[in-house]
Amino acid sequence: MAEITYNSWSDAYKNPFGAVILGTPIDFHIDIKTDNQIDVKLVTQFENGFKSYENMTRISEHSYHLRPENLTEIGFYKYYFQIIERDQLHEYHYFYGASQIGGGIGTTYADENSVVPYTQTLFLKAEQAPNWYRDAIFYQIFPDSFARNDLINNQKSDIFFYGKETDSPYYIKEPNGDITRWTFYGGNLAGIIDKIPYLKSLGVTALYLNPIFEARSSHRYDTSDYHKIDSLLGTTEDFERLVKTLHAHEMHIVLDGVFSHVGRNSVYFDFDGKNGGNGAYQSRQSPYIDWFSFDNYPESYKSWWGIKDLPTIDKHQKSYQDFIYGKSDSVLSKWNSFGVDGWRLDVADELPDDFIKGIRATLSQEPDKVLIGEVWEDASRKIAYDQYRKYIYGDALHATMNYPFRDLILGLLTGAMTPETAAGKLMQLYENYPTDIFLNNFNNIGTHDTERILTMLGGNTAKLNLAVGLLMTLPGVPVIYYGDEAGLTGHKDPENRAFFPWESINPVSHQIYKNWIAIRKSAPILATGDLSVFYSDQFFGFVRSDGAASQSSATFVFNLSDQGGMVDPEKLTFLTKSIDFVPFFLAAFESSYKIK
Amino acid sequence: MAEITYNSWSDAYKNPFGAVILGTPIDFHIDIKTDNQIDVKLVTQFENGFKSYENMTRISEHSYHLRPENLTEIGFYKYYFQIIERDQLHEYHYFYGASQIGGGIGTTYADENSVVPYTQTLFLKAEQAPNWYRDAIFYQIFPDSFARNDLINNQKSDIFFYGKETDSPYYIKEPNGDITRWTFYGGNLAGIIDKIPYLKSLGVTALYLNPIFEARSSHRYDTSDYHKIDSLLGTTEDFERLVKTLHAHEMHIVLDGVFSHVGRNSVYFDFDGKNGGNGAYQSRQSPYIDWFSFDNYPESYKSWWGIKDLPTIDKHQKSYQDFIYGKSDSVLSKWNSFGVDGWRLDVADELPDDFIKGIRATLSQEPDKVLIGEVWEDASRKIAYDQYRKYIYGDALHATMNYPFRDLILGLLTGAMTPETAAGKLMQLYENYPTDIFLNNFNNIGTHDTERILTMLGGNTAKLNLAVGLLMTLPGVPVIYYGDEAGLTGHKDPENRAFFPWESINPVSHQIYKNWIAIRKSAPILATGDLSVFYSDQFFGFVRSDGAASQSSATFVFNLSDQGGMVDPEKLTFLTKSIDFVPFFLAAFESSYKIK
Repeated sequence: MAEITYNSWSDAYKNPFGAVILGTPIDFHIDIKTDNQIDVKLVTQFENGFKSYENMTRISEHSYHLRPENLTEIGFYKYYFQIIERDQLHEYHYFYGASQIGGGIGTTYADENSVVPYTQTLFLKAEQAPNWYRDAIFYQIFPDSFARNDLINNQKSDIFFYGKETDSPYYIKEPNGDITRWTFYGGNLAGIIDKIPYLKSLGVTALYLNPIFEARSSHRYDTSDYHKIDSLLGTTEDFERLVKTLHAHEMHIVLDGVFSHVGRNSVYFDFDGKNGGNGAYQSRQSPYIDWFSFDNYPESYKSWWGIKDLPTIDKHQKSYQDFIYGKSDSVLSKWNSFGVDGWRLDVADELPDDFIKGIRATLSQEPDKVLIGEVWEDASRKIAYDQYRKYIYGDALHATMNYPFRDLILGLLTGAMTPETAAGKLMQLYENYPTDIFLNNFNNIGTHDTERILTMLGGNTAKLNLAVGLLMTLPGVPVIYYGDEAGLTGHKDPENRAFFPWESINPVSHQIYKNWIAIRKSAPILATGDLSVFYSDQFFGFVRSDGAASQSSATFVFNLSDQGGMVDPEKLTFLTKSIDFVPFFLAAFESSYKIK
Repeated sequence: MAEITYNSWSDAYKNPFGAVILGTPIDFHIDIKTDNQIDVKLVTQFENGFKSYENMTRISEHSYHLRPENLTEIGFYKYYFQIIERDQLHEYHYFYGASQIGGGIGTTYADENSVVPYTQTLFLKAEQAPNWYRDAIFYQIFPDSFARNDLINNQKSDIFFYGKETDSPYYIKEPNGDITRWTFYGGNLAGIIDKIPYLKSLGVTALYLNPIFEARSSHRYDTSDYHKIDSLLGTTEDFERLVKTLHAHEMHIVLDGVFSHVGRNSVYFDFDGKNGGNGAYQSRQSPYIDWFSFDNYPESYKSWWGIKDLPTIDKHQKSYQDFIYGKSDSVLSKWNSFGVDGWRLDVADELPDDFIKGIRATLSQEPDKVLIGEVWEDASRKIAYDQYRKYIYGDALHATMNYPFRDLILGLLTGAMTPETAAGKLMQLYENYPTDIFLNNFNNIGTHDTERILTMLGGNTAKLNLAVGLLMTLPGVPVIYYGDEAGLTGHKDPENRAFFPWESINPVSHQIYKNWIAIRKSAPILATGDLSVFYSDQFFGFVRSDGAASQSSATFVFNLSDQGGMVDPEKLTFLTKSIDFVPFFLAAFESSYKIK
């Protein structure tokens, strides 16, 4: 059979690289060496639509070209190549598609049903986030557990406060698994204000706060009242002071918008009748009755993942959309009026595209506000409720929480992924996302929903140094989960929500974060530059640069092993372009970099 | 068969009434009417010893008498009568003993093995308690739940504080039932000091505090350090201030001495090695090694009721006795030096007689100190570990916690006991106990170990009025369980340990307590007088008087029913002596009294 060459990551074969704005011409070239006569077709398919087969034109002895005219939808197209090869006796039909890892160099398939297609993203418009956001060093705060300025006591019934900040997190669970009494450290907004100097000295420039509105639980994802700061966290005045103080320090703040469901004991639902008696559970005359879906009123209602404590809201209801973002006195308007710089949308998968776009349109009425979505997978390829979602194709999210990025770093550092696989997955994200989105993405190596990074790395601070290095130098906006820099450890919730150890900050991890943040901030190219990846069995590295001209660039090499070793360009595999540096020795679990 | 009359509660048959001091002559008379020839013997048996049969002397046609010379032991003798009656043909052997209810009028038995014996107490010496004690109105405080003067925070690891004082008590239990994290309201000694004016206005004159020494739990029966005030309760200085303030108000204080076991994580045992490393679990060289009993060092050790959190102490160890009371710097000496007025010994059943007597001897070196024991049954007849205990026969306890008294009041008011049964049981206690002990007993209608009185009475404050009336007017020292006067309710632990409702004191129950306390204090005879009981189906009453002279007396009648009714002496049954009052109407669940 023929010798075929295609590489979706090489300009020589697909130009331009990666996602393109709708209407941009895309040239596909494929090289096929054979002595037989062949026909070559480009097979394209929009998401789950019909397939189209179009003949490619032979433009040199072995090269076939097509600039398809039918890529007219926003979203992504699957594509691969069909080759029909004829000799005297036979006509062979075979295919060329992507390898299992995704894009880049592909492979030949005999059976069309087995082909892993390449994909091509087409988006509506470039979504460059506000400059402050693109340049930010984010710090995620779980408000109950970060800092406390006096205990705000006697505000709530049937909760418990930990006796000491150093106590391990502990959920009081009934035999059936329900949490009927929540446990609080009592962290509050005044405590956060107190710690702004600490955050500034670490290099942080923006905060993302987990929910802060009135709720029953310590995580506050069960909103009771969207118009009220949780009484344990403080008052509206405290919040106003927090935003003003941050802005006075040229820092920014993003809030958590939990709009898919509410707490059962909210003003809106009022299951126990103690929250005004005006909720949908209490009365069919409730102004909120249309927000909820009852199978059998009022006992049986739709709830998030079947958790009865979290009744789901029907986000298609106009009255709810107006309430959250549509009216002049909406929830968003209220808090934006205090100067909030952006929102992170909880469980974006549960929010209709129109709801997200409505929020975005509201935010875009003012300058410099950012909208981030909680999506756990590659958001450019996410199916939720049987639909490919349009999170990042324009007029919706600026960024998503980049958990695939975390998976890749952890895979690389724990050995669960080879450098080749990790590099491939990284390039795949780079290829799939519109470039601005890729640069905007809200990168993490741990959040309130995952194990802490130091625990995942077995307490190894040498590996932590690499993890933080990757977080701070790869494309996307780095987000530090509070306390990771202080050496906090812990598996999933509740362990990952321990109180910040103000009296025993780990100096090693703290210095690691401080160093890498300084590097990030010293090289603006890290916020905006393109990406070229290289690796060997032992090393993983990349170049961030400002394109072909390379006036400015930053090159990083990370030694993934507990052995020192020579970094020799001859022994590295380069994806896209190669690097001109002289061989050098790199110690075990250490990194080296050059910024110009 | 013969017609027999005997009544252990009547001077005509047994003189003197009740318990007597060793060496006091006791005259037994029994009337037996028959035409046949009879022999009558008094059968006596010291506790579980051998039986002695002694002929009684016929002193008139039907009357037989004996003043036995063989009642020479301290404790109690069982006794009954054997009658051998002869006619021409037969010789009948039968017996006269007590009825099932106990003393008073008895009944005839054919079979000696079935006889319920009467009992006769002989004691070593009269144990009149200090005057302040005999006249006291006690108030029992569970320190974590009474009053809080600022939260003393950040003192202990791995505990929880309730968010509000009004939260219901809640224990955090692991699936295996263990409590691994304790929950605290944060009541403290400074809080108690703040409330002394409240207590004084209620009429309280003495406090009994549940344990206050350093411990892990909120009940503090798991002592960690006998020399230290629990750090959540305050400091030694706070304690000193409490005692001084009480004394300045002519009030007194009794502490809870928990000497049978210690907390597993005490200085002395140190299971988790976090309490100095000097405990018996940590080292065979521990100075405390002899206090504990190990089956298999160190894993397997003897503990209270098998609760591994409470290792039992071998109270026979001289070093422990010295530690608690023997040495000049003993635990008792230390706290007595601050002016403590007495001690309540936890689980007295677990303390050897000699240990209790050692404590008593230590206390008796100073004037006016009282010693009370936790015994749940009639302490004059209590068997513990196969031995009849010598708690109240002299040189040991002044008083015991009078739970049989509570049983009797609850029985009467809930209808579980007829007035006849309750009257009989009351007389039985009166008969069994040395009179001083009966007057000293630490009477309650609820404690930290029982359901609250208002809950037991179904929330009926009319019945509460009777219960408190009985508590304040029957012999013994009345003890109010904190918050009962404020209307607190709750079943057993933890419900009965809710925080005092300072913001919502029930005015009805509060007034009930205040009224009856005033009555108690207005009639000194209630602290010292003897007792005559009467009852009908509907009424229960008694006279407290200063003996035959009756210069002073107080008569009480309680209507047990929800109907009004005539109190007519003709229709009452009198135990011991009758009362001269004119018939009168008494409303439902009301009481009437006359004090002269």
